[in-house]
Amino acid sequence: MRNVLITIGYDGSGFHGWQYQPGVRTVQGVLEDALRQVCGEEIRLHGTSRTDAGVHAFGQTASFTGDFGIPAERIPVAANNLLDDIFIADATEKPEGFHARYDAVGKTYLYRVRAGGMPDIFLRNYRYQLNERLNTHKMEEAAAYFVGTHDFAAFRSAGSIVPETTVRTVYDITLASRPETSAAEIELRVTGSGFLYNMVRIITGTLVEVGLGKKEPEDMPGILDSCERSKAGHTAPPSGLWLEKVYFSEKALKDTLTGESQGVKN
Amino acid sequence: MRNVLITIGYDGSGFHGWQYQPGVRTVQGVLEDALRQVCGEEIRLHGTSRTDAGVHAFGQTASFTGDFGIPAERIPVAANNLLDDIFIADATEKPEGFHARYDAVGKTYLYRVRAGGMPDIFLRNYRYQLNERLNTHKMEEAAAYFVGTHDFAAFRSAGSIVPETTVRTVYDITLASRPETSAAEIELRVTGSGFLYNMVRIITGTLVEVGLGKKEPEDMPGILDSCERSKAGHTAPPSGLWLEKVYFSEKALKDTLTGESQGVKN
Repeated sequence: MRNVLITIGYDGSGFHGWQYQPGVRTVQGVLEDALRQVCGEEIRLHGTSRTDAGVHAFGQTASFTGDFGIPAERIPVAANNLLDDIFIADATEKPEGFHARYDAVGKTYLYRVRAGGMPDIFLRNYRYQLNERLNTHKMEEAAAYFVGTHDFAAFRSAGSIVPETTVRTVYDITLASRPETSAAEIELRVTGSGFLYNMVRIITGTLVEVGLGKKEPEDMPGILDSCERSKAGHTAPPSGLWLEKVYFSEKALKDTLTGESQGVKN
Repeated sequence: MRNVLITIGYDGSGFHGWQYQPGVRTVQGVLEDALRQVCGEEIRLHGTSRTDAGVHAFGQTASFTGDFGIPAERIPVAANNLLDDIFIADATEKPEGFHARYDAVGKTYLYRVRAGGMPDIFLRNYRYQLNERLNTHKMEEAAAYFVGTHDFAAFRSAGSIVPETTVRTVYDITLASRPETSAAEIELRVTGSGFLYNMVRIITGTLVEVGLGKKEPEDMPGILDSCERSKAGHTAPPSGLWLEKVYFSEKALKDTLTGESQGVKN
């Protein structure tokens, strides 16, 4: 039995999220259809992250097993011919027992905010667009409080899956801001061991409120300690969120965190 | 009776073109609905250009008459609140008798090509994406042959409207190329008095064939002279095309052509 890991990008605008649901267009559903045609047998994908409707990906990963004949390196081109708003960037043979969800040791999410100026209709599905400018220095100060191992219960939406624990480790949060003529482009990257439901979007919403002056950086420890969803900020919209990278080894994760991963695939 | 001219941008991906058609989503239809709510009466728009399905606009214009009370300068904000993938950038009062189509003296279209590298799924609705690199020097040489007054019959698709004459004047064609890491971004701008059906897309398709080495710049005069559609190149897809600007005075047109229009609204 072969086991293949694929790395996937998709434009989430046209999907009802990752997870297969009968009768609606999901990333998993469309990918399984394409892979069935390419592999000549039914394929069941195990995705690393069940991204929500409207959330995008550059580096989602998924594994699948089977007795198909096509070499792994031929899968991307063959499948991409059948795909429109999804692409398979890479396919690699993995040992038996490997699982894209259970073997992931970390993930990086990217959240894109466009602050100030008129909303750009061409970015409506790809940014969180705000009319106001944000104080990014204060946002950076506030972000630093999330790094480390914390109970993130205040930063979790109620979802269908109730986690055993709401303790998670955030390895790094970076905030890059590029002022443009009409509006500032802000890129927030969060790397962690795992994430609660909507955790990145609630962290972003909370940081946006700091940037607007509605919350102070020093409020963050109290919000974490409260473990109450109502103390944290709003849930930023799905359109600004990208699953950027999944790590399957402590080394790949460490290389990213120390900035040594440029140009190297995990 | 008041007469108002609006300047409009839209993402053409979600529309069956500009022109109103019952039962399908068109730019004119969605705009007339929003303006009816804003103006409190039925609005009939006269658009300058009937852009096709998938074609975008930054600077489409349209005029409408009526006895509504809302000041022109308040129309954009009020209507934009009701719109998603269309925005009204400007609204101006015009004298009685003004008509956005008949009073236009010229238009600039922008065509965007992404050449070389892997197709980017996030640009699938906004570029003509080619795997091969293009020889932009040869494309510029070829483009120069189109400037001036010519019979463009070879660069016209058969459409519902048969023009009285196929002679048109192209004032200027510019080609800007920005090589990027993975692919070159090529921007082709065509400014003319008026355009035949699909004329910009057929000029672009022909120039792409020159860039690929399938046609030579010196072939252009013969293609123009033939007046045969089959001699010209293919019709480039609608996704790369933007109606960028409409001119209502010879001065506005001249300012653009001489590069004096930076930052000045027509």
